[in-house]
Amino acid sequence: MGNIGNWEQIVSEKRSLRDKALKPYMVSDLDKRVPRAHDVQERSRIDDPIAEEITDIDSVPTLLEYLRSGKYTAEQVAHAYIRRAVIAHQLTNAITETVFDDALAQARALDRHRQKTGDLQGPLHGIPVTVKDQFNLKGVDTTLGYVGRSFSPATEDAIIVRILKEMGAIVFLKTNVPQTLMWAETDNPLWGRTVNPRNPDFTSGGSTGGEGSLLALHGSILGLGTDIGGSIRIPGSMNELYAFKPTSSRYPAIGVRGPSEGQEHVHLSSGPLTRDMESLCYVSRLVANSEPWEFDPKCAPLPWNETVFQEMQTRPLVIGLILDDGVVKVHPPIERALRDLASKLKEQGHEIIAWNTSNHYDCAKLMDQYYAADGFEDILRDLNAAGEPMIPHVQGLADRAKGKALSVYEYWQLNKKKSAFRQEYLNRWNATRSPSGKPVDVLLGPTTAHTAIPHRSLRWTGYTKVWNLLDYPAVTFPVDEVRKEIDIQPEGYQPRNDLDAWNWDLYDLNTMNGHPVNLQVIGKTLNDEKVLGVATMIEKIWRGKK
Amino acid sequence: MGNIGNWEQIVSEKRSLRDKALKPYMVSDLDKRVPRAHDVQERSRIDDPIAEEITDIDSVPTLLEYLRSGKYTAEQVAHAYIRRAVIAHQLTNAITETVFDDALAQARALDRHRQKTGDLQGPLHGIPVTVKDQFNLKGVDTTLGYVGRSFSPATEDAIIVRILKEMGAIVFLKTNVPQTLMWAETDNPLWGRTVNPRNPDFTSGGSTGGEGSLLALHGSILGLGTDIGGSIRIPGSMNELYAFKPTSSRYPAIGVRGPSEGQEHVHLSSGPLTRDMESLCYVSRLVANSEPWEFDPKCAPLPWNETVFQEMQTRPLVIGLILDDGVVKVHPPIERALRDLASKLKEQGHEIIAWNTSNHYDCAKLMDQYYAADGFEDILRDLNAAGEPMIPHVQGLADRAKGKALSVYEYWQLNKKKSAFRQEYLNRWNATRSPSGKPVDVLLGPTTAHTAIPHRSLRWTGYTKVWNLLDYPAVTFPVDEVRKEIDIQPEGYQPRNDLDAWNWDLYDLNTMNGHPVNLQVIGKTLNDEKVLGVATMIEKIWRGKK
Repeated sequence: MGNIGNWEQIVSEKRSLRDKALKPYMVSDLDKRVPRAHDVQERSRIDDPIAEEITDIDSVPTLLEYLRSGKYTAEQVAHAYIRRAVIAHQLTNAITETVFDDALAQARALDRHRQKTGDLQGPLHGIPVTVKDQFNLKGVDTTLGYVGRSFSPATEDAIIVRILKEMGAIVFLKTNVPQTLMWAETDNPLWGRTVNPRNPDFTSGGSTGGEGSLLALHGSILGLGTDIGGSIRIPGSMNELYAFKPTSSRYPAIGVRGPSEGQEHVHLSSGPLTRDMESLCYVSRLVANSEPWEFDPKCAPLPWNETVFQEMQTRPLVIGLILDDGVVKVHPPIERALRDLASKLKEQGHEIIAWNTSNHYDCAKLMDQYYAADGFEDILRDLNAAGEPMIPHVQGLADRAKGKALSVYEYWQLNKKKSAFRQEYLNRWNATRSPSGKPVDVLLGPTTAHTAIPHRSLRWTGYTKVWNLLDYPAVTFPVDEVRKEIDIQPEGYQPRNDLDAWNWDLYDLNTMNGHPVNLQVIGKTLNDEKVLGVATMIEKIWRGKK
Repeated sequence: MGNIGNWEQIVSEKRSLRDKALKPYMVSDLDKRVPRAHDVQERSRIDDPIAEEITDIDSVPTLLEYLRSGKYTAEQVAHAYIRRAVIAHQLTNAITETVFDDALAQARALDRHRQKTGDLQGPLHGIPVTVKDQFNLKGVDTTLGYVGRSFSPATEDAIIVRILKEMGAIVFLKTNVPQTLMWAETDNPLWGRTVNPRNPDFTSGGSTGGEGSLLALHGSILGLGTDIGGSIRIPGSMNELYAFKPTSSRYPAIGVRGPSEGQEHVHLSSGPLTRDMESLCYVSRLVANSEPWEFDPKCAPLPWNETVFQEMQTRPLVIGLILDDGVVKVHPPIERALRDLASKLKEQGHEIIAWNTSNHYDCAKLMDQYYAADGFEDILRDLNAAGEPMIPHVQGLADRAKGKALSVYEYWQLNKKKSAFRQEYLNRWNATRSPSGKPVDVLLGPTTAHTAIPHRSLRWTGYTKVWNLLDYPAVTFPVDEVRKEIDIQPEGYQPRNDLDAWNWDLYDLNTMNGHPVNLQVIGKTLNDEKVLGVATMIEKIWRGKK
């Protein structure tokens, strides 16, 4: 790390370029925009009623309807979103790269198309999209939060970006990630830390943390993230969002850069984050039906299965309930929300059975063994490219990995353990029957052991990462919030281990009150429509309750 | 390799156990069964007209019809196949393990079922099946040709074995493989060498060489093999068989043992070998519709797509033609067969375009780099378990791999190259259009650069292995034979490289005359029904020609 001057200079140049692009849209009343747990988007209000009205629409299909009817132009929508995104950034530090001029030009072209033909250009005509700084966007850096990847812009759009653009979507900025992406909080020496929109002392989660903050503050209506251990779902969960980690072979991944590229032990899933359930399903349907397998050889040739999606919303289901993974007990509001929802589902005629998680800790330990597989070589190369310092979490990973590189033979032995785990899990699933003798449709459980927490305190991602090793699709969605009056921490709990003790100690009703509680629905590999269908059904129950 | 006494003793015990099981069915007139290129099954005649009639039926559905009508009992069928398989073994050394008593008992149970219910027990009721010695069969060793894996019988059937058995199939023996399975000929210190049924000086191919010889001699009607570089298709091709390497996620692989388990860089495909095209499709349809994804997490949830399968047999197609991969020129009869078939296809209204193979050599070289990934550690552990010697091919691989183990980081870099190759290939495919502007449906090309060749002379598997790296389904099927009168080697050919010179020198019309010429149809990942549909259509043209 000899090059301190150098990396700091790059950081300064990159930030000043970004800030220059943001400046025209910035506001100067940040001190009046105080943190708040409820209606957090009030913090990013714009002094323009139409722009505010536009950006307060949560649903992609609804916004599209207004674009179709001519109520709003694409340029108005793009402009409104740029403005609100910049305010969201001022509050949370979420933006890395911008293409505002291109976005506005594209919006005007869409408006001309609509004027000329009377038709929208595609099923995402004029929909503003933001992407995590891992997705290649032509002409713009894909830094992954590495200083050393600055000033080498992508020459092509990622396939998923191209697909969305061809449908008329307007990608207008990129968002922040943690250094190395191997952490569920968002901080790096290049762009700095992204904070939680409800409380700047809290993390917005990660690694798709920039999207999390931006969407919560209505600075985006559709975000793209990636998830290899919880990176879409954790920020989604901490920010009251709808966030989907598909099976890795559903959304195309070509042009989505990652750390440790070439590792094939855990597949990276790309997926959407939205502000309502309908939008999540709408976009996933479009992507599946765009035949991504014609462009990405890793995609399965599976068009959207509407029959299965609808079936999940109409027939009685069998749902495996995860209240606790046996490693880290969830905080009281999460357990309460799960129990409430389970009762509601029972009332509606669904069968709820306790799900056996006895092998989840082994799975998490197996995944941890992979972290040192290359002795951190890939990541050190990236870090050393500009000589940037490591954030503490990365330093910890590097220290643990040092000198522990596996041989390829040892690496294969880990893969064998992984395959055996996947096989065992499937066998267990198949062997499980409901009291009425039916197989399990999906699982319902926590997304995290806690709601949003203070910076640098996130340690256990077992509730999300198990599904990455299994390559099971999983969606997180809000169902409730922390309620000071009822979510009292029971006394006398004896933690089972250090992680459990750490989590139990984190619980603080004073700071957490009002923060969103998200739950997760999980299905078997490639049962993506099933998972989204069940979540849609649950969402209806939850809305009814609201 | 200190334990010479020990490994030889194991070999002697294993062989004597096998021979004891075979003895009751052996014949003593081997000297009268002379090698022959045509109607090779004449060599394995049985002195029992009914048994002969049964084993001369090539089609699984036809045999099933006779079992249904009661023309033959399952016991008659099993008995006939055991007898003929043993003769085939006496001629070629194809069998490793046997379960004759179980098979006959199962056959009798099937007969009782049919007598009682009037119905068959399933869609493979009484169909004799043989499997390469990689498929776990409960109670029997899975040696993979390694001495050191002797006397540790499998505790469960492989999933594909279980699926076929549940449909009524009778698995009655296992067949020979090369030591390490990393070779396209069949020889190992445990079981010895399997020879070509047409010419004992020739190889039967590999690694599924035991199946190749057995099926050619009517010692089986349905074989299961595996293919990671050509191992199903090469013996299929050398033995006038129909042999299918599916996309790796179509046939379940749990319980199919391999060398270098845990490597995920090239996926092993399990697949069938049969004596006619109909049987290949029949079995593949059954396997897809048995929902293997419910048992093997690596299987894609794709039932058989009959629409696509039929469509390939009715509409005009665009076929990319591979006459030469630019590395090793094929022998004259193969080129002739390809050109003949291409003309026939054109006459029928199909569009034939030249396929660009300019990156195939790079692909082969990339795959070769993987061979040393673990410095041969996995294989050496197996070899050292009993201290057995290496066959020359394996010794060559070991010498080249010695000290060249990659780091995990380097290994990931290879994986990146592989992904880039797959992407590039798909882009090329998509960018190719026929003169009438239509996309390419499938490719048609050689299976090997030669027909069957002398032992220890096989060196180039580029025509098959490219499709393994790409995970493209590929089927090989007979279309012609070497014809001494017309397949004259043109003079003055200037080989491009050592491999090409070696192959060109191998050509010998005197010994090769009459040997089968197989071709290959290849499709994109998971286009399995398309590939089998086109091969079925081509087969009809070929039969018409016959």
